[in-house]
Amino acid sequence: MEVLTLKGFRDIAPEEALKRGRVLSLLKSVFKSYGFVPLETPTLEYAKILEGKYGPEADKLTYKFKDRGGRMAALRYDLTIPLARYVTENKGRITFPFKRYQIGNVFRAEKPQAGRYREFTQVDVDTVGVDSALADAEIIAVLATCLQLLGIEKFEIRLNDRAVFQEIPVPAIRILDKMDKIGRAGVERELAQAGFGKEILPRSAGRKPTARLKEIFLALEYFGLDKKSFRFDPLLARGLDYYTGMIYEIVVPETSGSISGGGRYNNLIGTFTGEGIPAVGGSFGLDRLAVAVPEKTFENIPFQPQVLVTVFDSGLIQSSLTVYSLLQAQGIEVEIYLDPNAKLDKQLKYADRKGIPYAVILGPQDLKDKKVILKDLGNRTQQRVTVEQLSNILSSR
Amino acid sequence: MEVLTLKGFRDIAPEEALKRGRVLSLLKSVFKSYGFVPLETPTLEYAKILEGKYGPEADKLTYKFKDRGGRMAALRYDLTIPLARYVTENKGRITFPFKRYQIGNVFRAEKPQAGRYREFTQVDVDTVGVDSALADAEIIAVLATCLQLLGIEKFEIRLNDRAVFQEIPVPAIRILDKMDKIGRAGVERELAQAGFGKEILPRSAGRKPTARLKEIFLALEYFGLDKKSFRFDPLLARGLDYYTGMIYEIVVPETSGSISGGGRYNNLIGTFTGEGIPAVGGSFGLDRLAVAVPEKTFENIPFQPQVLVTVFDSGLIQSSLTVYSLLQAQGIEVEIYLDPNAKLDKQLKYADRKGIPYAVILGPQDLKDKKVILKDLGNRTQQRVTVEQLSNILSSR
Repeated sequence: MEVLTLKGFRDIAPEEALKRGRVLSLLKSVFKSYGFVPLETPTLEYAKILEGKYGPEADKLTYKFKDRGGRMAALRYDLTIPLARYVTENKGRITFPFKRYQIGNVFRAEKPQAGRYREFTQVDVDTVGVDSALADAEIIAVLATCLQLLGIEKFEIRLNDRAVFQEIPVPAIRILDKMDKIGRAGVERELAQAGFGKEILPRSAGRKPTARLKEIFLALEYFGLDKKSFRFDPLLARGLDYYTGMIYEIVVPETSGSISGGGRYNNLIGTFTGEGIPAVGGSFGLDRLAVAVPEKTFENIPFQPQVLVTVFDSGLIQSSLTVYSLLQAQGIEVEIYLDPNAKLDKQLKYADRKGIPYAVILGPQDLKDKKVILKDLGNRTQQRVTVEQLSNILSSR
Repeated sequence: MEVLTLKGFRDIAPEEALKRGRVLSLLKSVFKSYGFVPLETPTLEYAKILEGKYGPEADKLTYKFKDRGGRMAALRYDLTIPLARYVTENKGRITFPFKRYQIGNVFRAEKPQAGRYREFTQVDVDTVGVDSALADAEIIAVLATCLQLLGIEKFEIRLNDRAVFQEIPVPAIRILDKMDKIGRAGVERELAQAGFGKEILPRSAGRKPTARLKEIFLALEYFGLDKKSFRFDPLLARGLDYYTGMIYEIVVPETSGSISGGGRYNNLIGTFTGEGIPAVGGSFGLDRLAVAVPEKTFENIPFQPQVLVTVFDSGLIQSSLTVYSLLQAQGIEVEIYLDPNAKLDKQLKYADRKGIPYAVILGPQDLKDKKVILKDLGNRTQQRVTVEQLSNILSSR
């Protein structure tokens, strides 16, 4: 059949969507516990808002088009520039520090690869309006708490300070950032190709943590982070142009590589108005994060209702619906078979195929006796019980 | 200042975003309790997938553009066509009936008005693969249960059957659908302008419920709906082209007018492959729904953390963070002041401005005595307590 979905885009099927929903609700609970509040910005922005903020590569990957009113619009490339735009427009109404999280889809016209899509979900957390090491450390602490709550035990936080690159031009920083991918020799080669001398590399590699980083490390310990979970990485650069201070990445070595990154960007918000407002933040990519979450975190999410209430025939719809409503009111996840003309056998097969573990059958004789049949579809046993017993049995599972 | 947000688009500030999040999580719990599972489809589709499905008016309002690969892409106009496309592509893998819900933003280049935006959130619930009156009634029952759980007590469900319009051309149906807005005289005028005779109106207005509608009404009662909450509306038409059977709207008279609508569309999924799959569904517009929700539903959502832990000076950061972490671990929503160099007075004013009800102060003497000061910022009282007492007091609030 003809492919009907755009290249680089995808559907997220129910089982996966349920898992992602579970991850997001855990993340939201952590953000809220640290005093972060949700913000939503539009999917479309003026193209000029996004242009020139990320670097030339990203500018090329931004989806842009002219809307009906002749405005150049762009699909958001990340959630940080929209935050900066929001803060600029609402400065007078915001109490700083403004601690916000945002969960939203972003769009990048990249070459699709395994696990890389042109639309994907980012989870951002940022503190705007305060320049302390405490604010830097808190962002890291929030992200680390998220990982712990998701059951991800092994992760490594690599930190650096953009201040160590002060005298290095941004294009060279972007090459230095590829150290993990292309190795030292590769970096040296690309530096030479771009016209930079080799001395750039030792100038950055020989560094010690800045005083600010030392302050952040101390605060991380105060926030309860294990010293072994974070380290200074003098070669970490991060690709985006707008960072000014602390930068970091969180790596889960065994599964998905880098799952989070961010840093301080004290000049970005100022680009819209000239008046700088300090900010620090970070983000998770939901796809990579979900891959790193161990299965046990998802164990208690039922992917299917626990019970199918069958409909014996159309004359018994009312009684079946009564049982259905009663179970539902008790918080049992239940489904009713929607075609009263289907044979009972077909209805039970449906439950089987979907992996629904129990079925309730209510025939004419059962109705007279005020009983129902509860069928365990796993071990093929059944018992005849009152409706009260039924709801007790199912609630206690 | 220059407007930085595109015409017809908007930010959703934290307080509003929290309320919307609350509404959505209640809706999801209802959908799950009826056995519906989440699905996510991309924001962008091939334009040809969306074109010609909704009617000529909607085609004009769809955002379309050419992507880098020269494909005509479109921002989704609703969530129903993407569902139909998904079912077509995944038919072999789906166990029918497929009961899915989807929450997502849709895009329409309409003239912006008060409360009408070009990007807005739709909440869809649909049952695909079964043609019974029970499935029709269940969709209505799900939506009614949502309204009840949200605390919306007064609503009216108006139902009709597209079958009654069988001999009436779709353009005339669209005019009939305006009865509420422009009255009988207006409808007659527009019918005449479009070249239709007046006889179309009585032909539809004199109708009795079809046999199918009577079946649905009965099932609605079985599902526990109050008879007074729904009624036959022979003039209800619904604007979209794809309905084939039951159509309905839910109206909340006192606040937001129509907040939900939908119907049966047995031929839509077939348009992609020629092989029809019956389906029925409905949707809420989140904006209108949120307006109709009474304030008391939101009473238990804290819009701010309950406590601000202040930082006396930079030497006391560690002790303050210990108290902070301890409160947080107990599920208390707490914030720490992120600038240890700010005067205490400034920190307390920040809590006041944000409406945080309590502040914790921890000075050098308190530290020695292993106590903290808990300040009630509402009535300006304070008490000196141990950390254990502190967490007991705050937990019991």
